[in-house]
Order: sequence, then C-alpha cells, then structure tokens
Amino acid sequence: MYDVIIIGCGPAGMTAGIYMSRAGKKVLILEKETIGGQMASSPLIENYPGYTSISGSELANSMYEQANNLGVEIELDEAKKIEVTDTVKVIGEDNIYEGRSLIIATGSKYRLLGLDNEINLIGKGIHFCVSCDGAFYKNKTVAVIGGGNSAVVNALALSEYVKKVYLIQDLDHLTAEDALITKLHEKNNVEVILSSKVKEIIGEEELKSIKISTNGIDKEISLDGMFISIGLIPQSVIVKDILPLNKYGYIETSNCKTSIPGVFVAGDCRDKAVKQITVATSDGTIAAMGAIEYLNEKKVN
Amino acid sequence: MYDVIIIGCGPAGMTAGIYMSRAGKKVLILEKETIGGQMASSPLIENYPGYTSISGSELANSMYEQANNLGVEIELDEAKKIEVTDTVKVIGEDNIYEGRSLIIATGSKYRLLGLDNEINLIGKGIHFCVSCDGAFYKNKTVAVIGGGNSAVVNALALSEYVKKVYLIQDLDHLTAEDALITKLHEKNNVEVILSSKVKEIIGEEELKSIKISTNGIDKEISLDGMFISIGLIPQSVIVKDILPLNKYGYIETSNCKTSIPGVFVAGDCRDKAVKQITVATSDGTIAAMGAIEYLNEKKVN
Repeated sequence: MYDVIIIGCGPAGMTAGIYMSRAGKKVLILEKETIGGQMASSPLIENYPGYTSISGSELANSMYEQANNLGVEIELDEAKKIEVTDTVKVIGEDNIYEGRSLIIATGSKYRLLGLDNEINLIGKGIHFCVSCDGAFYKNKTVAVIGGGNSAVVNALALSEYVKKVYLIQDLDHLTAEDALITKLHEKNNVEVILSSKVKEIIGEEELKSIKISTNGIDKEISLDGMFISIGLIPQSVIVKDILPLNKYGYIETSNCKTSIPGVFVAGDCRDKAVKQITVATSDGTIAAMGAIEYLNEKKVN
Repeated sequence: MYDVIIIGCGPAGMTAGIYMSRAGKKVLILEKETIGGQMASSPLIENYPGYTSISGSELANSMYEQANNLGVEIELDEAKKIEVTDTVKVIGEDNIYEGRSLIIATGSKYRLLGLDNEINLIGKGIHFCVSCDGAFYKNKTVAVIGGGNSAVVNALALSEYVKKVYLIQDLDHLTAEDALITKLHEKNNVEVILSSKVKEIIGEEELKSIKISTNGIDKEISLDGMFISIGLIPQSVIVKDILPLNKYGYIETSNCKTSIPGVFVAGDCRDKAVKQITVATSDGTIAAMGAIEYLNEKKVN
C-alpha cells in the first residue's frame, strides 16, 4: 500500500513525488510513455529558472534522479481505471496498485496536423509553445497555424520580435475574439492567410518550408519556424467518470484539490490559464502539500 | 523607459524577468539586499525540481546568470516610493526609474526571536521551513518554537519522521485551531512545553541546545535542529497605500493581477497558502504573462 499514487511522470508528478517523499511518504509514480512527459520532447529549454539552457530530456533526467534518490518508485505502466473507496485502486495494464491518496498529473498533448515529417521535425523548426520557443526566432520568419484565440495570441506575441509572421487558417475567417483580430490587423509584419490548409511540411534535418493549398492553388512558403496552435488535448479520460471536466476536457480543481477527499490534480491536465514547467512544478508542490495534510489528518483520526 | 520594473530579485522576480526578456521586453529588476532573496540564505535545497541538492546561493547565482544573459538589468537599490500614472515611476534610494508596467516581488521575511547567535546559526540547525528543511532531521530531535497554526502544523509534519519534537510556546496555551491541537496531543513523540521563552541559543558552528525559562525556572534542551514558527513579515510596506493588503499584510491578488492596470504581484508577498520556490517561479511566470499581454495590448491601442 502506497501513501500516494501519482499518475504521470512529468514535472508536476515528479515534483509531487519529491515533496511527498521528503515528508516521509511512500510514493509510486505511474508513467505510460516518457519520463518527463511533454517537457522531454523539448530540445532546448531556456525559461526554466536555474538552467540558462538545458534540453527537456536532460531536465527530465535530473528530476528523475532527484525523485529516485529520495526513494520515489517509478513504474512504466498505463493506468486504465481508478477506483476510489476509502483507499485508491489504480488498475494498470500490467498490475494493480493500491494507495491511500492519488494525484492525477497526466498532462496534455498538443494537437497535430497529421502530416508526414511533422513529428520528426518537432523541436527542429516545428513548435507549439511561443513562450517557450518563440525567442529562438528573433528577426526570423515564422508561421502560426490556426485561427483561434491561442493562434492569434501567439502571432501577436511573435510579431513583437520576429521579422515576419504568417498566420495560416483553414477556415475563411479567424475564430479568435474580435479585439484580438483588430490588434492583429494593426501589425505590419503579420500576414493572415485564410482558407488555406497546410498540405506538406518540407525539410529533412530541419524545417525549410511548407506547402499550403488555398482554394485549390498550391503555394510554398519558406520558413525558419512554425508554431502549430490548433489546440491541446488534456489527458483526462481516465477520470472522466469521477471528476468534473470543463468543456475542453480539463479537470476542474480548486487549489489542486478535487471534490473527492484524498484525490488531487496537478499540471497541464488541470483547468488553468498558464501551462509552463514552472506552473507544473508549483502545482506538484501544492497537490503534494494537500495530500500530505490529508494523510497526516487521516492517520490521527 | 523600461517595459517593466520588477521590485525584488528573488526567484519570483528573476523568473518574471526571464520570461519578459525572452518576450522582447526591456526589463529592470531592483533589489535592496540580496540577489536570490530569502532563498539565498538556505544552505541546502533538495526540493527544487531539477537539482538533487544545491545551496540557495548557487541556485540564486544560476537564476541571476540566466536573467543576465537574457539582457535583464539588475540594480542594487531600495525602492522607496511608487507612483502609478499612465506609466510607473519607482523612486529608489539612489535613482528614479520609469517603466510601462510593474511587478511587485518583494517577498516576505521570517520573524526572528531576536537572540544572540540566531542569525549565525540559520541553516546550521536553525530553520523556518519544514517542507524545505525538515527532511534533514529524520530520526533526530528538534524543537518548533511557536504555538499558532503554522507552529502546530510544523510539529505535526515533523513528528511523522523525526524522533522527538518539542513544541515550545511562550503563552500558557496554544493559539492554533482546536482540531490541530487535538491531533498534536495524539502524537507520542511530541512534547508541548507552555509558558516558556527561549532565552539562549547555544552552539558555535552549529546548534547544540537551547535554554528555556519556564515560570522563572531555566532548563537546557539538547537539539539537532529547531524551526522558528512565529510568523512571516510580508515586505509590502511600499504598496500599502495603493494596493489592498489582507490582515496579515500580504497583497491581495487574483492570478497575480491587481486592480491597477499594468501592476502585477508575484511571490511570497502575495496572499497565498503555499510559499515555496516552485510556487514563486510559477507566480513570476504568471505575472510576466499578464504584463506581456498588458504591454502588447497597450502598444496597439
């Protein structure tokens, strides 16, 4: 019986593990894919305080080592089902795990265009997060793919320091708020291209250009970088029957707590405005504090 | 004219600087005492994700280097007065600074007992934060000084893994909530000592013992560590006339925003439950995002 089972071994899950283990708790983290989660796929991180420059996989390894040294157990297994009674049972693909409390830190994933070459070039010209990777494109030419709020906000942010931004949207209009669209049209270095689908991503070692199709006419655009801004998919399916999700599928919480005693949520699967590694580690800390308090109270009662 | 002036060069302020500089903004951080703030006085940090073990001053240096490399300007000057009109004027002891936005990241300070030797032994047996430093005392003997909620919560947390906790309170009763006191009395390894004042801290290179006085009778208690839990003093005086403070003096915010457009708050000076480096860097990130959005919108309008 573990004191806590943490589902997801990204920065939120590992931070929660570090805090709980240091508080004398027996901790298990379950991870279905990659230690470090989405962070691990980032080739270069320059906004995590304390490291001027580090790759996502290196930062993931450092956090893993730290958790591991503190006695946190980490299992590669996919959680399939959660049963909460007085304790928590997590049914994995390989095993069944039991704990006194639970932290959901399953993260979210960027939605992809579904083109050849796309996954290979992630971090090599293809990006998702402007706050993370925009600064690598100062005075360069980039495209933002999408037309909703996040795409327009990304184009606006990039336009402050890049040479040129193409905003490429498949519909014949942008779906972002009017106020944002007004701001966008006042920018001299942003070109909005509507009714256009990205057909092909060109580049071997790094992104060179994209081919877009506008009303049947193909055109190639040379690019230094592109930011795919067509949404995120929160990894919340496993809790959909036990916790409230917002309309986008993020788990609703209050200070990382849920309506179920002993069940906490941390990181990008949680309903919140800013999704950054710093915020994930903060979530991990706050969820851990909640779980520690819960366990210490329960022990006495 | 700076895009943003950040008051306070702790983890919150430096993180905000890192994010804003990477978004192409001109950043000034003002610090009155120590780069790194309260973090810098911690001899050993084992709960900052990404560093298994690092001193507070090393972590402060790493963040400083990172901010500095990104072009963040850092001045050692004490902000004395803030004037907010359409822009922000900060009157320092040495100079006057002007900016388009402001982030208050002035932190908080632990209240001290005011005894000889106390400051010298911080980090050498004397601590304030159980989540940070409690784990160094597994199976050892510690004292918690204080009798309010935080002192009792600290004693409860420590009792999970230390050998013995003395809880030493100067009043003849604990002022913590009844529920916490009930839990405390169920612990076999916690000894509550009321009506007792710490008179002397004994130890040269590290804490050895304390002398307490109970109704005129002195007693020496051998200790491995002690946690002073008599409160925090938020460093919020500078904004007391322009921003709402809660009854303890912390600045009230909503997602690091204030009621004044262009003025943001991050870190331990803010009204929040968990005060950790991870949460400070998260605050710095969120305040920076708010300030970036504010500046980008203003530029267009």
